[in-house]
Amino acid sequence: MDVMKAIETRRSIRSYKDKEIEEDKLKRVLEAGRLAPSANNRQEWKFVVVRDKDTRQKLAVAARNQHFVGEAPCVIAACATETEHVMRCGQLSYPIDVAIAIDHMTLKAVEEGLGTCWIGAFDEGEVKKILGIPERIRVVELLPIGYPEYVPSQTPRKMPEEVVVFEKWS
Amino acid sequence: MDVMKAIETRRSIRSYKDKEIEEDKLKRVLEAGRLAPSANNRQEWKFVVVRDKDTRQKLAVAARNQHFVGEAPCVIAACATETEHVMRCGQLSYPIDVAIAIDHMTLKAVEEGLGTCWIGAFDEGEVKKILGIPERIRVVELLPIGYPEYVPSQTPRKMPEEVVVFEKWS
Repeated sequence: MDVMKAIETRRSIRSYKDKEIEEDKLKRVLEAGRLAPSANNRQEWKFVVVRDKDTRQKLAVAARNQHFVGEAPCVIAACATETEHVMRCGQLSYPIDVAIAIDHMTLKAVEEGLGTCWIGAFDEGEVKKILGIPERIRVVELLPIGYPEYVPSQTPRKMPEEVVVFEKWS
Repeated sequence: MDVMKAIETRRSIRSYKDKEIEEDKLKRVLEAGRLAPSANNRQEWKFVVVRDKDTRQKLAVAARNQHFVGEAPCVIAACATETEHVMRCGQLSYPIDVAIAIDHMTLKAVEEGLGTCWIGAFDEGEVKKILGIPERIRVVELLPIGYPEYVPSQTPRKMPEEVVVFEKWS
């Protein structure tokens, strides 16, 4: 599938079929994340892939009871393993690097006929407890993934002229 | 181009041809960023697209004299327009959201035969001064974009078993 088609058809999927993800498909989605670039090639990420139903349901509760998080046959907890490095521009590397890896996975998922949803609304302490994640690690996002049951229409976007300016700020 | 091919062949391009980017190609790359998802669909991004040679060269100086930043026919300064919002998980939204939009652009650029390089090593104050960007705005990354003069081989990645674990942290 063309990159642009994946970008244009990706949606935040909040309803999943009760259908397992084939092993090779899931592998390719994770591979897309593994190949992502990162600041100084730090690759300061680790992905906890949860398929166990009970654990997924606990994660859904930790994600403010968003039921669909547990409904998806797989939930990926995207973690940062080094959280101190600050780039010269003043930004921490890890949220950006982990986001790049997740974004790669979301677009590859579309290519595989799968849906995902970026989840930032969760209790990090609870998620860490459920998955046995150490204190020093940050959980940046949860990513449910599975076959979409319902594909919503695109949420509105700002107009191009609102988000792109040329040569100087305006 | 398939999503996976774009992911596999994307490189950090640090040498660009002296060749302008066609208007429609650049438009499609920016469109890929515009369509990106963001926390609560905030779209708290703005892209300053710089093609003026003098300005590009000033940006290259601000980017720790990385000459190739000015060599690229276009440099995009990816900015965050709202920087206060914190997600329930404790992460600021803006570095993640802007990274998603940039990542979309980098993969669409590959599909267009273009190269990019994530630049986090720059003096944010200097870049703001050069582009007239207000105090309250954050410049998250610079993204030079153009036709690659030299395509390096892939930098090494951690092994899958180093970055993916199943069910529980380990």
